[in-house]
Amino acid sequence: MERIPIIRIGDFLLVTIQVDMYDRLAMTLQDDLSKGIVKYGSKGVLIDISSVDMVDSFIGRMLGNIVSIARVLDAHTVITGMRPSVAITMVELGLSLAGVKTALNVDQGLGFLRAMMAVGEEVQDRDYNPE
Amino acid sequence: MERIPIIRIGDFLLVTIQVDMYDRLAMTLQDDLSKGIVKYGSKGVLIDISSVDMVDSFIGRMLGNIVSIARVLDAHTVITGMRPSVAITMVELGLSLAGVKTALNVDQGLGFLRAMMAVGEEVQDRDYNPE
Repeated sequence: MERIPIIRIGDFLLVTIQVDMYDRLAMTLQDDLSKGIVKYGSKGVLIDISSVDMVDSFIGRMLGNIVSIARVLDAHTVITGMRPSVAITMVELGLSLAGVKTALNVDQGLGFLRAMMAVGEEVQDRDYNPE
Repeated sequence: MERIPIIRIGDFLLVTIQVDMYDRLAMTLQDDLSKGIVKYGSKGVLIDISSVDMVDSFIGRMLGNIVSIARVLDAHTVITGMRPSVAITMVELGLSLAGVKTALNVDQGLGFLRAMMAVGEEVQDRDYNPE
């Protein structure tokens, strides 16, 4: 099992991180995701990290990269299911994920993305702080 | 990462199998899933096995168990993303998953579950062959 599956849910793509990330897997994921966004014309990406109980700067950077790639491809990214301990560690590591939308679970993330699609650019301007 | 995350999508629960299954993990998954169905009142379970490139009788039995448990709890199960090679192996192993609904991807599986909910029992009687 050498790649993380990307699941299509209507206009969105869902990825759940369940395994320890390493260089090649992260690269494959970025690659698959960007191809998926283009192939399906997806407007949003959900990355569920509820199984991740430890983060390091590598994962933080990977998440940041995915968000940036998706943004360039006109898709929003929501990171869901972050554990409290992970949130603490991320901030301690200086990875505050500025400009990245998070949600407590996938259902809420989906709701956010649907609202985004409904309201369009207006919401984006209000919620996003791209730097 | 010692448990497989269960993702709630509206009325349904989604599980993606990405790691090699072993006894305890399968037990935890069954346990979490049945609790999830009851907790959220879920009407359907989607099990995505698109990352699974090898099946043995253990996985086959586990899938069968999950389907049976869900059925007892009044939820339908759809197994999605089975690779052609896995389908061949399963049949060769004598695991034909009788009475289990499959779909090519999660999106189609979701569509099926939504249709099930809309039409209700009528569809169930037509499509299911419980033994």
